[in-house]
Amino acid sequence: MVVPIAQRMSRIGTETAFAVSQEAAQLARTGKKIFPFHLGDMNIITPETVRRGAIEAMQAGKTGYCPTAGIPELREALAKDIAASHRITLAADNVSIQPGGKPTIGKFIMVAMNPGDKVLYPNPGYPIYESQIEFHGGTGVSYGFNEARDGFVLDMEAIRRAFAAGVRIFIYNNYQNPTGASSPREEMEELARLCVKHDVFVLSDEAYFDIRYSGQALSIASLPGMADRTVILYTFSKKFAMTGWRLGACVGPAKFVEQVSKINVNDESCSNHFIQYGALAGLHGSDEEPRRIVATLKERRDVLVDALNAIPGVKCFHPEATFYLWPNVTDVIRRKGFKDAEELRKACLYETGVSFCTRRHFGRPLPGETQQYIRFAYSGINTDQIREGMTLLASVLK
Amino acid sequence: MVVPIAQRMSRIGTETAFAVSQEAAQLARTGKKIFPFHLGDMNIITPETVRRGAIEAMQAGKTGYCPTAGIPELREALAKDIAASHRITLAADNVSIQPGGKPTIGKFIMVAMNPGDKVLYPNPGYPIYESQIEFHGGTGVSYGFNEARDGFVLDMEAIRRAFAAGVRIFIYNNYQNPTGASSPREEMEELARLCVKHDVFVLSDEAYFDIRYSGQALSIASLPGMADRTVILYTFSKKFAMTGWRLGACVGPAKFVEQVSKINVNDESCSNHFIQYGALAGLHGSDEEPRRIVATLKERRDVLVDALNAIPGVKCFHPEATFYLWPNVTDVIRRKGFKDAEELRKACLYETGVSFCTRRHFGRPLPGETQQYIRFAYSGINTDQIREGMTLLASVLK
Repeated sequence: MVVPIAQRMSRIGTETAFAVSQEAAQLARTGKKIFPFHLGDMNIITPETVRRGAIEAMQAGKTGYCPTAGIPELREALAKDIAASHRITLAADNVSIQPGGKPTIGKFIMVAMNPGDKVLYPNPGYPIYESQIEFHGGTGVSYGFNEARDGFVLDMEAIRRAFAAGVRIFIYNNYQNPTGASSPREEMEELARLCVKHDVFVLSDEAYFDIRYSGQALSIASLPGMADRTVILYTFSKKFAMTGWRLGACVGPAKFVEQVSKINVNDESCSNHFIQYGALAGLHGSDEEPRRIVATLKERRDVLVDALNAIPGVKCFHPEATFYLWPNVTDVIRRKGFKDAEELRKACLYETGVSFCTRRHFGRPLPGETQQYIRFAYSGINTDQIREGMTLLASVLK
Repeated sequence: MVVPIAQRMSRIGTETAFAVSQEAAQLARTGKKIFPFHLGDMNIITPETVRRGAIEAMQAGKTGYCPTAGIPELREALAKDIAASHRITLAADNVSIQPGGKPTIGKFIMVAMNPGDKVLYPNPGYPIYESQIEFHGGTGVSYGFNEARDGFVLDMEAIRRAFAAGVRIFIYNNYQNPTGASSPREEMEELARLCVKHDVFVLSDEAYFDIRYSGQALSIASLPGMADRTVILYTFSKKFAMTGWRLGACVGPAKFVEQVSKINVNDESCSNHFIQYGALAGLHGSDEEPRRIVATLKERRDVLVDALNAIPGVKCFHPEATFYLWPNVTDVIRRKGFKDAEELRKACLYETGVSFCTRRHFGRPLPGETQQYIRFAYSGINTDQIREGMTLLASVLK
């Protein structure tokens, strides 16, 4: 028989970055050495405190189901942790543990958005926003970024226009993938004012909140009038190098979070039981291990930013958060005669093994974009490999 | 602000059995001893082979992402395992690893069902079928069970009517929760003929395929014309006592499975990486540990069935699969003057601590149901506790 595929499946997107991974893996199998800058995975093992906590729980028989919204201890500890960092009030019932950070995106959209609702989301941005909005019948309205002196800033004109035109939901990913952008305080304050004024509900994707190299992280949930209209996407993936464990949380108004957990009852029953004790050990443990992770990433950033800027025609900011860089390669594309960033990517991959993503992997390019960007992730590659790869890349792009 | 809750959330159901858990837990906190027959969790620790496999992988750094559809080794091993037990042809691309057995239900429905499609599902049955069908805009058509000499059989008249009336999808849970029913071969063969004749696509929920106390398990996917129209819900939860690990798989036509994995990209990225090596160790390990689990459950079943049948007015079959019993309590309800099974449940819980579910926790009762049933799960309670609880129950219901 012809396998039935429902119409909704024509509206779902994907992470096209995975295709780059596959291409790189295929090339690796031919013997080519790959320098993996394409995926935001981490080649840093999860801290021992977390591993030990999980193993102890597993061996103690925490191998049966746990409550859908997570073990109470973890919900409480996380509520306390985020309440302290965000200076807001949270209790366990504001937290629903999820099998990763990503699950909060789809569940947030299913709970908050009716078909036809307008949702404002970043583009370039994590491609799953666009995919989930469209899969569930919403209308995506995207906003981009502009280059300022020290880094990227939001295209506030586009955002103001969208608020005025009636968006109901705003997706905000400060400490942003792929640009590495951090909102200056005034920018975040204007966003909060707009949300309050237009009565807009917010998903604050804080996946990189803890991957900061300087200053203090600030959440839009902390600003006046925002706590009761903001749902936070939290993940253990980055702070504790737990990407493959799949553990995160949806944090927000209790009434909303309860609906999210209802979807969990239908989808996953609960998140893995014993790994929640690992995450709990991480939250209760000293900051030393997470700080070591950030220090490792910071060293990589410095080496990579310098190496990129040493290539004529490449302009790269020095972001204070995330493990991504979003270099402007417009000039090098022009100088080397490539058609576009995709052609540049292919040439670099096959000639040097240096593998990265481009603008097109982070949403549909907006009309009027004149600059070309590529994305480097440095979470999955050591400093010496960064140096080796960038030497090869520089020789090809010189 | 008023938290936005989309209209679709009014269509989602839940596992009302969780409410029974909460009621029992609340009672336990007052000091009452609870005999937990209400939830299909297991109080048997995961076999050491599986735990060791997962720990070794974790310590070896399998803590980053893995491919969305699962590690290739596990997909291959599971394809081989199911191909052998089902006598069908399967390869790795027929398998998408999922964070549990349950995730296959929702994803199957999202991929296979268009809004308005009629879906035939068991009722009494696992309540998530009904919930997911209605959440995604389908029309549920339910079928029940009749008592035969040795156990429950499907209401084939209702099923034939539904096929004739144009159902597009058939959900079949042989080795059934809650009835414990196993289809006689002729029953399954008639179902397969109906599916082929009416070109109907099938979800075969095989969560209890490996929890068999006699004979050989048979899957509808093994019958003529069925392999290319059947998607199998597989779970590691029962065979390896891994309920809280959340690991399972969606197994079926490669084109369909590919679409399922596309949803995984959007929802969870992947299932936990290192626990997949634990499951792999389980599949490669000896049968001894899984057989010990089944032997333990079998002993419990025998004790519980006898104890239930010793209560006047209770009639309980002796099912050859699952860890559920579905005793008919119509007579005891009448004799003791209870209004319904729910009143019986409450009385038993508060007077004896014996906690179980009833018909209403497994779908909306069908018109014309005259018999009253309750459900006992014996996966989470030891034999001595079964004896103690049933002695108390017998004294109250005598």
